[in-house]
This record gives sequence, structure tokens and C-alpha cells, in this order.
Amino acid sequence: MAARTPRPLSGFPELLPEERVVEEHVLDVLREVFELHGFAGVETRAVEPLSVLLRKGEIDKEVYAVRRLAEVAEDGAAAGAGGDDVLALHYDLTVPFARYVLENAGKLAFPFRRYQVQKVWRGERPQEGRFREFRQADVDVVDAGSLAPHHEAELPLVMADAFARLPLPPVVMQVNNRRLVEGFYRGLGLADTAAVMREVDKLDKTSPERVRASLVDGVGLGEREADACLALATLRAEPGSTGFVDEVRGLGVRDELLDQGLDELAAVVAATGAVGGGSFRVVADLSITRGLDYYTGTVYESRMTGYEHLGSICSGGRYDALADDGRTTYPGVGLSLGVTRTLVPLLQRGLLRASRPTPTAVLVAVADEEHRGASAAVAAALRARGVATEVAPSAARFGKQIRYADRRSIPFVWFPQEDGSHEVKDIRSGDQGPADPATWAPPAEDARPTVAWHEPTA
Amino acid sequence: MAARTPRPLSGFPELLPEERVVEEHVLDVLREVFELHGFAGVETRAVEPLSVLLRKGEIDKEVYAVRRLAEVAEDGAAAGAGGDDVLALHYDLTVPFARYVLENAGKLAFPFRRYQVQKVWRGERPQEGRFREFRQADVDVVDAGSLAPHHEAELPLVMADAFARLPLPPVVMQVNNRRLVEGFYRGLGLADTAAVMREVDKLDKTSPERVRASLVDGVGLGEREADACLALATLRAEPGSTGFVDEVRGLGVRDELLDQGLDELAAVVAATGAVGGGSFRVVADLSITRGLDYYTGTVYESRMTGYEHLGSICSGGRYDALADDGRTTYPGVGLSLGVTRTLVPLLQRGLLRASRPTPTAVLVAVADEEHRGASAAVAAALRARGVATEVAPSAARFGKQIRYADRRSIPFVWFPQEDGSHEVKDIRSGDQGPADPATWAPPAEDARPTVAWHEPTA
Repeated sequence: MAARTPRPLSGFPELLPEERVVEEHVLDVLREVFELHGFAGVETRAVEPLSVLLRKGEIDKEVYAVRRLAEVAEDGAAAGAGGDDVLALHYDLTVPFARYVLENAGKLAFPFRRYQVQKVWRGERPQEGRFREFRQADVDVVDAGSLAPHHEAELPLVMADAFARLPLPPVVMQVNNRRLVEGFYRGLGLADTAAVMREVDKLDKTSPERVRASLVDGVGLGEREADACLALATLRAEPGSTGFVDEVRGLGVRDELLDQGLDELAAVVAATGAVGGGSFRVVADLSITRGLDYYTGTVYESRMTGYEHLGSICSGGRYDALADDGRTTYPGVGLSLGVTRTLVPLLQRGLLRASRPTPTAVLVAVADEEHRGASAAVAAALRARGVATEVAPSAARFGKQIRYADRRSIPFVWFPQEDGSHEVKDIRSGDQGPADPATWAPPAEDARPTVAWHEPTA
Repeated sequence: MAARTPRPLSGFPELLPEERVVEEHVLDVLREVFELHGFAGVETRAVEPLSVLLRKGEIDKEVYAVRRLAEVAEDGAAAGAGGDDVLALHYDLTVPFARYVLENAGKLAFPFRRYQVQKVWRGERPQEGRFREFRQADVDVVDAGSLAPHHEAELPLVMADAFARLPLPPVVMQVNNRRLVEGFYRGLGLADTAAVMREVDKLDKTSPERVRASLVDGVGLGEREADACLALATLRAEPGSTGFVDEVRGLGVRDELLDQGLDELAAVVAATGAVGGGSFRVVADLSITRGLDYYTGTVYESRMTGYEHLGSICSGGRYDALADDGRTTYPGVGLSLGVTRTLVPLLQRGLLRASRPTPTAVLVAVADEEHRGASAAVAAALRARGVATEVAPSAARFGKQIRYADRRSIPFVWFPQEDGSHEVKDIRSGDQGPADPATWAPPAEDARPTVAWHEPTA
């Protein structure tokens, strides 16, 4: 280890113990909710053959290739030379999951409901809310052959359940449908619909005027078509409202795929309109298209109110052609919550905090090293009933042992007495009284660290 | 995604959902026990600068270097050319943790107790119990300046608590002390003690005769010295026995460091002798030295009875010089449990099994698609009280919906009735009766999947 203080790596965030308590709490809530909804936990390896990751071509430059140092030494360059044996770190959890489904299709029961919480890696330029290593929490439903459309409304409801239990700002989920957009463009007679979508996708970063100019000068649309594309993309609905259906029809474009997309989007919005209690709302937003090109129907993005500049914290969509083994296709729909993107900016602002940086609720004091065994016996008795307990690391004077607890916000210090009796002290109030290691327990709110939102102070 | 079935990558194990239930159970127990003992959860990034990982020099060839594809394309070779900017996947959790301690020393309270459960990567040749990607669960105590020796006995007791709750074969932990061995060799007048240790370390793979021959012909020891080294390494003690102290002294070697090591080892064995209940025993074993060279005092290895060929599943030791910022050293002691190494061979043999591959306890049937909302309301009511519940994916005939549950071992199917009442059926017994979504709960043993050891059948 270097005889100097190492520095953080930009884009690879690490948490202090009290911040990690917050993250663990969020991960516990997500797992609890995903399991309550019947999703099975799956994990895939961190690496995939480069050929699997690059099939969709979009983000090659951001992929991290992985090679044994021995190999690198043997044949120098060539890490980017291709071939199935070159491995790379996965950049999302959807592509590896699709590969997992194909690989294990014979052993899975369909429709297959899975959640997956893992780190992913992308070599993007680090900035707020953008990391090179970050954790995603995904839920997907995949079926063999065809996938019932009600799952497209189910997934937002699962996330709504999760956000209702998380100490986070309110979230607005924006939903759109690729078929709707594709059909609208087709109905306008546009040929390169992908190019149009790419420009329209920039609406949250630039002005409508600039997008319009790119559509006309860059993609080659007529003025009327460009206006129609912008009119579609700037339609907004109230949460739960399906009024957008008439508004789209009012734009005068007719196409079968457009009709299908409108029906699908209206169904999702209608089924999720009643959700929420304020923590999570679903709205139709016809500008959302998602950059990655494997989505084929419903697409989702979500933003935290007041933290919209972080971008979408929970995104996904329906993919009909991602997993296909030549005999069967496995259409799916999924949502991916950016755990790191959501939490790190809030932790950095001190808005999300844990009540203490350690699980310990009780520190058992040690009178002298000969009596360490007696203190360890108390700790064992408390732990046997689920009370997180440490024994003081040194038999220093009691004032110092209490300071040890105080520095970690450990609420209770336990004192074995010479006569074999016991006392426990709440070091916040100073209250001290007799206690029995076989029966005593801390108040429920002190048992484990708690996590709370702290309003920013001006 | 390829239009063919992908194949597994050798050395990168992935689990089926029912196997993952087993792993999650084990990880839950480990976390619960580590937190009961007051260890804070920490996670470090997956990558470190190559310079941090290679400082100890031992396993360079096994390290995986990581580079953005864009970089590889730009300057070809050079991934092995060195420099602080080259990143590599961590191969253990101790070296990254030591770096984390140095980086955050000003923000941590010492002694700092942490656990860390993450995947690590080593490019070794895959074989049973050896993987290229695998999960480790580490506990360490690190202090600033000096570390109290009682922590060297504490860590085996923490692991003993964990194994007492895990459905695994009994574990024997073998403990030794590097100072003891080093002092013994010094007392014999040997110069290259590292070379001797390297040969003696091979005792579990080859015969004493061969090791003796290597010591004489390879390292250049005299016959008498080689015999003494072998005599030391083949000393075994009964669990909890400190009789080895007299036996070592009986070998006639005198050295101050040897005395210190003997005292330390005797203290660890004495303090852990009473542990266990059969699931975990601690014995002095003077052949154990650990390959990695950062250990300076106590060293540990552990083997599962009946599965000794998997090698050590839980190893570690005391390291006094791993973290040092030039002003302060941070000595520590740690244990690392090989979660993947322990579980994958047992899962492959069908010895560890989950009661079902999904968290779902109740499937709510759907009479027809118009009534999906009524079934969803039942599911929401059950989930609000912690009952993991799915709604049937299609309004097929009830026989098919029951088969959906049966294929996943979901124990209960719920039937909303036309008159607004409800019935629930235990599909194992066939018992069906009225139930109220506001109060009904499954028996505790059916609430979540359970995990059990299944004796091998002949």
C-alpha cells in the first residue's frame, strides 16, 4: 500500500459507512417490494462477450474491455480486435438478462418475473448523476412467444409501491409508446424515422427551435412535417389523463401503428392513473423515446421533483425482439432504477441521512482485560435476541468507553457490575438503571440505524 | 442478441432462481450476524489502479486489466505498460479495504469494524471451487497505531456464530501464527525464511518427503533444519488444546519472535476453544502460512468436513503493515469467507435446496380480464401485510392458473368470488376455504422460500 493518502477515482463513487446505511436501507426496501410482487432475484456475471454487448452498436465507445494481464503481456494490442473471447463489463442489466433467459430458457417458468440489483459500468465522462460505476435495480417480466400488455401497467405500479416506502422527493414517471411515435412519423410519410427520433430526443437538452432546425436542415423534413413532429413531442397530459388521445388525433395523422400505440399508451395511463399518494405519478409524455434502440412499445422515464437535472432516474420499456434463439422469441418489459444516480447527489447534499454509521445498539463496557469474558457473555446474550452489540475494544476508563460509543452514536452502554448484576445507560439522556441481559431490549426505534430525509436548510 | 443459445463462460458461475434463493439466504445470515457483532457494511469500487493491486507482486498474472474500448482503439497495446491510470478489477477485498481506510481515515472512527460482501475477479484456471468471478464475505477490524490482540480471537467467534445458523457441513478452522513460524526458522539460523515457508505451504498438496527434498536440494537447508521445519509443520492439536506450545518448545529451538508467536497463538486457541456446538471448531495447525504475503501474525484457514478438496473456504489473518500513509499505520485482522467457493459445489450436488424458486406465497386467480382489477386489489391488500403475492398473468381456465402456481411451488391460490367473498386453496393439500384479504396470512413456514440441507442419497 502506498505510503501516502490515495485519492478517489472520478466516476467511481464510494460511500462512507453512514452513507452506506442509507443505500442499504433503500436496497432493502426495493428487494422487499420486488419480492412482495413475486419477482425472483437473479444475478448475472459482470462480464459478457463483447459480441453480445455490441450487437446493438449504440454505445461501443463506453464499454470497458476486460483482459487478464497475462494475456495483455502475451499479445500486446488486440483487446479491441473483436472475437467471441474478448470480454467486457456489462453496461446495463437488460442485455445480460436477455442472454440469461436464452441460456436457461428450458429451466425457467414463463412468464418469468425477476429483479436484479447489480453494478454496471460505462466509460462516460463523469458529471453529477453520471458515473462510470453505478448500481441499477431492475424489474422485468419476460414471456415466451407473447407477453400480455397488462404487464406494461404493472411495472410502474411496482415502482410506485417502492417509492411510497422510500424517503425521497416525489417522482413523476413519463410514459410514451414507440409504436405511437413510429406510426405518427410513418403516417406523415417520413422514411428515416430513427433519425427523426434522435433529434426529438434532444428536446430536454435544447430548444424546440433548434430541434426544428435540425429536422429541416439535417434530416431533410419539410416545414409542415417538422411542425407536426414537434407538435406531437410537446403534447403533455395531466397525471392519469388520457386526453392526449384526442389531441394526437387532432393533429390529423392517420396510421394503423399509430392507433395501436395510442391504445397501448392509453391503457397504461388509465391503469396507473389512480396510483400514488403523491410520491409517484404517471403521465403520458409524447417526447420520451429512450436512446437505446431495443425498445419496441411502451417506454418509461422518471424524474425526481426538484432534481430534474439528474435526468431520468428510472427508465425502461417493452422489448419484443431482444431475446430470440431462432425458435422462440422472449418479449419482455422492464424498469431500471438508477440507485447510485438517485442517491449519491442526495447524500452529497446531506439530504438523506442515517441515525448512526454502525448497526451497534449497545456497547458493553469492559472493567479490565481479565473481565473481558464477562462482557463478551453479556454481548452474546443480547445478540441471541437480535440486539446488535459490541464489546468495548479496550478496558480504558469508563469515560473513554462512553466516548467510543458517543462518537459512533451508539445509544446504549452496558456496565456489568462486580456483584454480577448489570446496569445500562442511555448515553443521550444519561438515564442509567438495572437491566437483565436475558430480557432487556432497546426501544424499537433504536434497534437498528434509521434513515430519514432532512429538508435543506437555507 | 444472438439467434442461438448462448453458452456459459467457464469460471463465471451463474445461479438459477432457486439456487439464488439459497445464496440470498446465506448472504442474509452473514449480514445479520456481522451486524449483530457491530460491523458496518462497506463497499468499495470494483476497480483499483494497477499500482495498488500489484504492490505485493504476488498474483500479477491473474489480475484483470480494464480499459475503455475507445482507449484501446486509440493507442493499441499498452494496457500492461503500467502507470497509475491503468485500472484493474480487484482480486480480493482486503487490499481495496486498506486503500479505503487510508483514503477516509479522517472520517472513520477507530477501531473500525467493517464487513464487505462483493464479487472479486482472478484469472485463474477454473476448476471445482476455483472461479474467475466469485463472491467473498469479509469481516475486518482495523485500528490506528496499534490493534488489540483480542480481535484475533474475536473474528473466529463471529464466523462461528454465522456457521451455527447456516445449513452447511461442520467447519474446522486451522489457526497458526506467522511470527511463530518466522521465529522458529530464525532460531534455526535460516536466512531465506520466505523460501522455506513457500515450500512448507505445499504440504497439503504433496508429500512431506517431497517438501523435505525441496527444502534440502532447492532452498539449501541442512538435513537437521529440514527435519525441524517438517516437525513443526506437522504438529496438530486437538480443538481448543494449547498442548502444541510444549510440543514446539520440545523441538529445542529458542527465539524471541517464536515465543511471541506461541503466546499469541495460544491466546487465540484458548479464547476460541469453547466455541461451536459442532458446527465450527478452532484448532492450532502449524502448517498453515497463507500464500499472500501481507499477513504478519495470526493466520487462519478453514475447511468443510467432507469437502476438504475445495480448499480453504474461510481464510485471513493479521496484517500490520498493509495500510500506512507515512504518518500512521493501520494494523488490522480479517477473515474472508468464500461464498461462491462454498455454495456452488454444494448447489451443483443438490445438497442445498430452496423450497421454491420464487418469493410468491399466493397467486390470485383472474376470472376474466375485466376482473383483473379485483384480483389486483386482493394482491395489494395481502402485500400491505407482507404477503408476497402475484396476480395470475392470464385469465385462463382455473386449472391452468393452478398449474402456473404448481410449477413454481407457490403454495396458495386465491379465488375472488362473484358475490364479493373470497376463497383460498392450499394446492398441496387441496384444502379450500373462505378467507378475508384484510386478515388472512399463510403459515409462517410458507411466507417465504426456506432453505435446507438435503443429505446425499446413495
